[in-house]
Formats: sequence, structure tokens, C-alpha cells
Amino acid sequence: MKIAVLPGDGIGTEIVAEALRVLQALDLTFETETALVGGAAYEAHGHPLPESTLKLAKDADAVLFGAVGDWKYDKLERSLRPEQAILGLRKNLGLFANFRPAICYEQLVDASSLKPELIAGLDILIIRELTGDIYFGQPRGRRTAVDGHFPGADEAFDTMRYSRPEVERIAHVAFQAARKRSKRVTSVDKANVLETFQFWKDIVTEVGKEYPDVELDHMYVDNAAMQLVKAPKKFDVVVTGNMFGDILSDEAAMLTGSIGMLPSASLNSSNQGLYEPSHGSAPDIAGKGVANPLATILSAAMMLRFSLNQPEAADRIESAVKHVLAQGLRTADIWSAGTTKVGTREMGDAVVAAI
Amino acid sequence: MKIAVLPGDGIGTEIVAEALRVLQALDLTFETETALVGGAAYEAHGHPLPESTLKLAKDADAVLFGAVGDWKYDKLERSLRPEQAILGLRKNLGLFANFRPAICYEQLVDASSLKPELIAGLDILIIRELTGDIYFGQPRGRRTAVDGHFPGADEAFDTMRYSRPEVERIAHVAFQAARKRSKRVTSVDKANVLETFQFWKDIVTEVGKEYPDVELDHMYVDNAAMQLVKAPKKFDVVVTGNMFGDILSDEAAMLTGSIGMLPSASLNSSNQGLYEPSHGSAPDIAGKGVANPLATILSAAMMLRFSLNQPEAADRIESAVKHVLAQGLRTADIWSAGTTKVGTREMGDAVVAAI
Ligand SMILES: CC(C)[C@H](C(=O)O)[C@@H](O)C(=O)O
Ligand SMILES: CC(C)[C@H](C(=O)O)[C@@H](O)C(=O)O
Repeated sequence: MKIAVLPGDGIGTEIVAEALRVLQALDLTFETETALVGGAAYEAHGHPLPESTLKLAKDADAVLFGAVGDWKYDKLERSLRPEQAILGLRKNLGLFANFRPAICYEQLVDASSLKPELIAGLDILIIRELTGDIYFGQPRGRRTAVDGHFPGADEAFDTMRYSRPEVERIAHVAFQAARKRSKRVTSVDKANVLETFQFWKDIVTEVGKEYPDVELDHMYVDNAAMQLVKAPKKFDVVVTGNMFGDILSDEAAMLTGSIGMLPSASLNSSNQGLYEPSHGSAPDIAGKGVANPLATILSAAMMLRFSLNQPEAADRIESAVKHVLAQGLRTADIWSAGTTKVGTREMGDAVVAAI
Repeated sequence: MKIAVLPGDGIGTEIVAEALRVLQALDLTFETETALVGGAAYEAHGHPLPESTLKLAKDADAVLFGAVGDWKYDKLERSLRPEQAILGLRKNLGLFANFRPAICYEQLVDASSLKPELIAGLDILIIRELTGDIYFGQPRGRRTAVDGHFPGADEAFDTMRYSRPEVERIAHVAFQAARKRSKRVTSVDKANVLETFQFWKDIVTEVGKEYPDVELDHMYVDNAAMQLVKAPKKFDVVVTGNMFGDILSDEAAMLTGSIGMLPSASLNSSNQGLYEPSHGSAPDIAGKGVANPLATILSAAMMLRFSLNQPEAADRIESAVKHVLAQGLRTADIWSAGTTKVGTREMGDAVVAAI
């Protein structure tokens, strides 16, 4: 088993270090190799995703990713900015299926903006298509408008698109995931306005016929954004496109109030995957040893389950995390009165000890 | 002053009737003419936006709109579905500036999903561009993919686009609105991925230079969806495109917990406008006399202020609505223990009495 380790920028190095220590505590045999990515790679090699980093990721069974980005790269041209690394990895590794669980841990209910009764016990899984849609559609760019409200004016444009096999494969992923859960899928679209999402809706409906045991419903994206606020627990598996998934998965994550706890997985069709926390690089607290490593540690658990075929080891990590929460240990982002504030390293130590 | 009255479907007729009674109580001189729109127009004339309805709307100073839509039209081809009426009105009247206030009334704080301290006093204004973006961009449709992941496969596509003058004019609307408020504008984009929104961001920045007294910041749409949940009161004026605005304005509305209270206005460059509640047609409660008419009544107030140049009359309506809330009158959607449950008509009566 080979793991490419890409810590990235900001708090990336600190949190990935703890995830690696947890993995090492499990007595598994695996190889790791570390490389630069994002702003760190740009500084060293002039590109956020150097060829060597991409090759390492491609050759590995899984990528353990920290986070990328920093305000200081805002003025760079787009193709050199840190976040291009993550888009490049998704595209080049074909990581089309993004799993974004939004889970509210019992002990962290009060961290949520929502009233406790609405959020306690939340456990939804957002499955976001990750290599299609308006993220990668061509053509895109600038041109002179030929029609619309101001013909002759400068305009910028992008292309939203989905092909049938792209929608089919992500629909299968969602239905299969739902079978292991409460057997309900909500497909989110904007079929009332977009050709792309009428197509999406039709195909998800078709694929759904192969899963008669799974209940399927459809919701417009604006309504989904509302229902997540109103009654998040009514959702089980949500499947949607790249753009809507970007927005809804972040909204759902923030509902929990503890985004520092939320892992993610991005898989291709051979179950090779990239694993990263749902939160960002938090340059403001980088290097201070206060970042929460748990989302990354839980991402490592997803890696063991999805890409490395070690479900028991994954369970052990997840139980250890629950254990440290029950012990009352909290990093600053999830700390509340009556619990014990710890740093990144101490939190890693505690998880290792619990394993 | 001529008002085109388009009640539409579901609860539309009931709520618009109350708004008209309130307008009549103001001793203003205006003319109204009513027409069918949405499903009701489809049933009568075979089209959700008949020529006669469109002409009436175009010739009026303002349109007072109820709501359109019903599940029973779901199987119709897209061009005949009720919501096409609203898209057609926006496009044909050039209603590019959509004002969506998200206000949490003092007495209704508990209706929110959010903890009271996060929502009490909320007063944000989302300004959504309404005639551009992927809603109307051409080309769109189905074709055979020539590139992407599955060349040769069937695909559907849409075009996102904004031209310079479209972005400029909505930016001016936002900065001018901010001048009358707390002088802060947040422009929401996805410049890290989309050409359209890098262009948007650049132009909003440029226009912002003409408003040195207004503070401008930029936020990615995924982050905006999060920050709305985390700390909605940090926003003042939010300006964004048609698609992101659709999602964020509904999310923000639902945060208040009292979407039945939220009006909206959609204006063109001559201040002709369409005024409608932020909520939908609620076919499940149509005809029962229980719908909340206040969002429509408050939309009529926006109409007086923006299109009919009667700001005092608008103030009178808004004060009257605050008064009935203070009296403890509530329709079912906002009712809580200790307050008096009233129907649509009684709520209208109470507002009229307060005027
Ligand atoms: C950094 C950015 C390109 C990325 C996205 O939009 O996909 C991020 O928001 C995410 O969700 O991983
Ligand atoms: C009905 C639909 C086409 C419309 C939109 O997406 O604009 C609605 O959601 C709205 O926000 O007014």
C-alpha cells in the first residue's frame, strides 16, 4: 500500500503529521512519500501541482492531502494559484465521486448555529460529482457578446455540461452508498431552468429503477439550500453536481458547527482516492500548533476504508476519535466551557493513545 | 399609476387579495388590472404567460405578483410550466435587479432554526442579478460530446455568461443600496473556478472605486453559504449573479424561519418592477384561508417605494405590519404558543385596521 502525502499550505503540515502518526500506530504495512503541493509547491517549483507531485499521486493507492491556499497568492494568475492543484489532481486522477459526510458529534451539538434539537444526531452524506459540470466544461473565456442584452459588449462565459455516463456513474455511487445507510437518496438539480440538470434528473431517475429498494426524491437546489437549514436531519444521501455540491456540502458542513471534524474522500473508478479535511488551510493559525487534526485523522480512516481495504483499521480510528471527544479533549475551534483545551499535537497523542 | 395584478396559482389569489385591500386603505389613486399567469393561465389559454398578460405587465408601472406553480404541472414540457411565466416576465421587462431582504422580526426570532443570538436583529439585503447568467445564456441544449471524459456520449449543456454592462449596472444598484444602509457590500463569486465570475469580480471592484465611502469585500459562493449559517449578521448588502443569488437568497430567507414575512422586488432600469413574496404557491394550503399574506403586503410596500414613488405610504404599510405582529396576531406558519392564530383574511383586516 502506497500513500502519497501532500500536506500543502497553512495548517496542512501540522494536521497531516498527526494523521500520519495515527496511521503508524495501527501496525499496518504501508509506504508513504511526501511531496509539495499548492502554494508551497509554487514557491519551490513555480507551479502549484508540479509534474513530480502529480506522478507521485497517480502512482499511489491513495493521497492524503492537507489543505492549500493563502491570501498571499491572491494576486497570482489563476493557473498558478494553489487551488489549481486540487482541481488538477481531481481531473488527472479522475476523482469523480466526492464523499462529504456532515455529521454532528453528540458532544459538539452546542457548537452549531442551529438549535440543538435540529442538529443533534445529524448524519448526512453529500455525494458531489467532482470532475464534470461547469468546473471543467469547454469552451470558457472572454469574447464579444453577439446576442443577449448587450451585443457588442465584452463578456465572460463558462460551459456547464454533463454527459450521460458521468451522471450514471455518480448516480450508482449514490444509490450504492444509500443501500448501506437509510436507503434514501435526494438528487439535487435545477431542472426547471437548466438543460444540464433536466438531463441529470432524467438519468438519475432511470438509474434509480435499478435500485427499487432505495427511495429517490428530487429537489431544486434553492429549495435544498433552504431545507438544509430548516430540517437537515430529513436528508440521508444527497447527490448533486460539482457546482451545487460545492455550495451545499459547505453549507451542510457549517450547519454542524464543527467543520474541523469533517473528513472527505474523492474517488475514481478504481477506488484510488484523495482524502482531505473539509476545512481549509487557515493561514491565520498556521504554525501555532492549535489546529484541529481530527478531520484529517478521520480522512485517513476513510482512506483505509475506501482505498486501502482496511475497514477494521478505519473503525479503530473512528472509535478512537469518539473516545477522545468523550474524554473532553477539544482543540480551540470546538472548545467550550467545561472541556479541556488541547493543541494539535496533544490531540494527535490522545488519538494514538486511544488506539 | 397602473398596477398589473397577477395572482397566479395556489395561495396566490388569497394573498394578493389582502395586499390589494391594504393598498386600497391608503387613499392613493391607482388603477389595477388583473390577469392570469402560471398554471392558471395555462389552463385557460394554453400558456403560462399569455401575450395579453405580458402586455398588461409591460404597460403597467408595477406588477403585483402572487405565486405560480403546482405539482400537477410537473409533467408538462418545460416551456409550458408555470415557472416559465416568471422567467418570461423577468426577461421581457428587463427586470435585472432583484432585491431580496432577509429580515428577522423581533417577535419571530424563535421561528428560526438558528439560535436567537445569531438571528435576532438580522437585516440583510441580497441583490441578485436576474436577467443574465446561466438562466438565459445561449447556446444550451443536448448534443454529442466531442471532448470531456466521454467523447461520443450524449450530453446536455448550458452557458453561463455575463457582459460588462450587465455586471456594472447591478454593481451600481448594490453600492447605491448600501449607501442607504451600513455602507458595506459583499460581492459573491466563484472567481477561483469560473471565467464569468473572475470577470464579475474585476468589474465589481472597478465600480466600487466610484463608491469610496462603501466598503467592498469579495467572498466565494461556497464560503458565503457557510458564513450565512455561521454569522448571518455580519452581512449587510450581498450582490451576486442569478444562479448563486437564487441559492443564497433562499438560504438567507430560510435562516429567518419566517419566509412567509419576506417580500421581494425585481426592477428594470426605469424602475418598473415586479413585486412578489419570497415564498411559493403552497398548493397544499391553497383555498384554505390560512396562508400568510404579510410577505405580499410587504411586497406592495416595496412597490410603493421603488416603482410608485410613494415612500410614506410604504412606511405606513411597514409600520402597520409591525403593529399587527406586536398585537400578537400570527398566521399558522409563524404561530407560537401565547400568540393569536388568525387566517389570511383576518391578518389582512388587522393590517388595514392598523393603517
Ligand atoms: C478550492 C476550490 C477550487 C474548491 C472547489 O470549488 O471545488 C473547494 O471549494 C472545494 O470544495 O474543494
Ligand atoms: C421558479 C424559478 C425559475 C425561480 C428561479 O430559479 O429564479 C425561483 O426559484 C426564484 O428564485 O424566483
